[in-house]
Amino acid sequence: KTHVDCIASHRVVRLPGLIDVHVHVREPGATHKEDWQSCTAAALAGGVTMILAMPNTNPPTVDEAAFNLTQKLARSGSRCDFGVYVGASTENYSTLPNIGNMAAGLKMYLNETFSTLKLDDISVWMKHFENWPKHLPLCTHAEGTHTAAVILLAELYKRSVHICHVARKEEILVIRAAKERGIAVTCEVAPHHLFLTADDLNAIGQGCGQVRPCLVTKEDQEALWDNMDIIDCFATDHAPHTKEEKTSAKPPPGFPGLETMLPLLLTAVNDGRLTLEDIKDRLHTNPKRIFNLPDQPDTYIEVDLDTTWIIPPAMKFSKSQWTPFAGHSVTGMVRRVVIRGEVTYIDGEVLAQPGFGQDVRTMPHKPAGQMYDQLSVTIPSLSLPS
Amino acid sequence: KTHVDCIASHRVVRLPGLIDVHVHVREPGATHKEDWQSCTAAALAGGVTMILAMPNTNPPTVDEAAFNLTQKLARSGSRCDFGVYVGASTENYSTLPNIGNMAAGLKMYLNETFSTLKLDDISVWMKHFENWPKHLPLCTHAEGTHTAAVILLAELYKRSVHICHVARKEEILVIRAAKERGIAVTCEVAPHHLFLTADDLNAIGQGCGQVRPCLVTKEDQEALWDNMDIIDCFATDHAPHTKEEKTSAKPPPGFPGLETMLPLLLTAVNDGRLTLEDIKDRLHTNPKRIFNLPDQPDTYIEVDLDTTWIIPPAMKFSKSQWTPFAGHSVTGMVRRVVIRGEVTYIDGEVLAQPGFGQDVRTMPHKPAGQMYDQLSVTIPSLSLPS
Ligand SMILES: [Zn+2]
Ligand SMILES: [Zn+2]
Ligand SMILES: [Zn+2]
Ligand SMILES: [Zn+2]
Ligand SMILES: [Zn+2]
Ligand SMILES: [Zn+2]
Ligand SMILES: [Zn+2]
Ligand SMILES: [Zn+2]
Repeated sequence: KTHVDCIASHRVVRLPGLIDVHVHVREPGATHKEDWQSCTAAALAGGVTMILAMPNTNPPTVDEAAFNLTQKLARSGSRCDFGVYVGASTENYSTLPNIGNMAAGLKMYLNETFSTLKLDDISVWMKHFENWPKHLPLCTHAEGTHTAAVILLAELYKRSVHICHVARKEEILVIRAAKERGIAVTCEVAPHHLFLTADDLNAIGQGCGQVRPCLVTKEDQEALWDNMDIIDCFATDHAPHTKEEKTSAKPPPGFPGLETMLPLLLTAVNDGRLTLEDIKDRLHTNPKRIFNLPDQPDTYIEVDLDTTWIIPPAMKFSKSQWTPFAGHSVTGMVRRVVIRGEVTYIDGEVLAQPGFGQDVRTMPHKPAGQMYDQLSVTIPSLSLPS
Repeated sequence: KTHVDCIASHRVVRLPGLIDVHVHVREPGATHKEDWQSCTAAALAGGVTMILAMPNTNPPTVDEAAFNLTQKLARSGSRCDFGVYVGASTENYSTLPNIGNMAAGLKMYLNETFSTLKLDDISVWMKHFENWPKHLPLCTHAEGTHTAAVILLAELYKRSVHICHVARKEEILVIRAAKERGIAVTCEVAPHHLFLTADDLNAIGQGCGQVRPCLVTKEDQEALWDNMDIIDCFATDHAPHTKEEKTSAKPPPGFPGLETMLPLLLTAVNDGRLTLEDIKDRLHTNPKRIFNLPDQPDTYIEVDLDTTWIIPPAMKFSKSQWTPFAGHSVTGMVRRVVIRGEVTYIDGEVLAQPGFGQDVRTMPHKPAGQMYDQLSVTIPSLSLPS
């Protein structure tokens, strides 16, 4: 399954292009934090060939005009394939379905976070569950007991629901119970909840460490690992803010994550806590199925499983220029990213131009010509980035 | 169905003894607010012949020792029939079922209120849902989205759940949706949510007006009335505190309600907003069924439908000696209360002695000899209380 690199005895394996279903691109509205060009460069550097972009932009993507604006920015700026979510408001439950087929899915904000879209009234939630087409994805930021509440709505309205960034023991346990009883719930977990806890807050800094859901306890984190079998997706919840913002008196919640996710996960593979299959399932196969995403023909990534490096204070491509994982030692590195036969990233350099990325809702939807997921290839070993 | 009183042209009707499934007796622990003797005197004066007593006493009724203490106090103090709830804690999910058959049911506190029993972690809720015997009542203080969360748990664990004091539109709508889809959820509404709103807070006073769930908006209240068909029970949530406490800097939440519920409901009957059948269903038939309560043979109340009076600053029997309904004009009055053939209350006087009441979990459980619910009788008109 893995290939022994003849030159340096580093194993290099090919994986399918990773799909990150939870990314905050920040454009339109906050391009000093991130924009489509920088965000998708970071995605490629992280082995991610497709992102789904959250709607808490400015303007928020809550109507057709805002959706068209974001889609236009994405089409001209994105270096990888992309979809754009629409956001639920108290008003738009009857109009959003009109643009449902063009959207990545519907996102509902049900807890306090970096957004103006929070919905408090469960009767509004019900209207969205009732109106949003059953075959289209519906995602919720629904922490704690809200997890259970939205799962009930999925059951009541006989549709699926996807729970974003599950972080706590109580959340994963109620999802497990619901899955065991056949309710159509899926979920994602973010790397920062798998690899950081509240104990890391002092090291990260109280302001920088703000994220929603918060960094949790070791017991919560352990519950995520113990229930890995029912975690459908990994997703970064890449939510860049500048270092200045994060160290200010009112630090906004959110971490960048696109460039660090895969090295962290590969380290867990090296540690025997995950397998490469676990990663493929949760970053390719399951996201594709849950979000009904098209194949990306001739698309794959090549990763070095053996290079050990220290995550620097800031990764190269995200404008945020800081990372909560600074100083973490990781083993595993993205070497090359190929989309539709084109090398879009190689050893620290992003080659794909803005506008190269395609909209997942207008791409042809057919099986890939080859099952790249199963292949493994040889590429020469390179010197490590300094 | 109703009888024309020959002497004063007042209609007097017989109703079955009312069952109030939600009463805070305050004994043990806070007998300056209320005790079994005063609470059940207030019950009888309100036409209530059976109460179920909540476990947030001191000590809280969360284990066998505390249950035995409360049960002993109830048996010696209660003037009407009674049951005693046990309360869910983070610890007792495996031991409480041992005394389940003796308890009125299990009460779970899932929101902030006048209690030390609040449970935050849904995985603890799940343990109680899993362990509490399926044939025994399980009641929840579960406001807002918590309503949906506990309904999911009912569905997951294939058992029933009773939602206490539904107050908001979002709550009643999610209960309606769940009932329409066959989930085993029942609910109660308190008179203060049917007859008061947040607009009354200035008149009642901000401190006195504190109650959980809070007094709600007119829109919420309207939703309760519009969904009367799915409200299973009325229940007072009689939660007495002294006037001094209610007007202090930290007013505890809760209203007395036993002596005012039926006059308020009879006023709604007079206004054409309810029928006597609605009252019988929600204060006798449904509570009996939902909580598996025994028949009280030869037990009934007689009410005058036509006497109009103004609710005074304090009702006669509750030690709390204040009421949020002071000044309300009501039409309808309890005249006589008969339990097991004995007159326990007549025209302002409580005749039943402490200790007369029986424990619903040790009473013989058989059909009543006569269907008193259907009868109507004549009693002479009396002078009104001054
Ligand atoms: Zn290598
Ligand atoms: Zn979120
Ligand atoms: Zn997010
Ligand atoms: Zn594939
Ligand atoms: Zn009369
Ligand atoms: Zn309550
Ligand atoms: Zn209560
Ligand atoms: Zn009856």
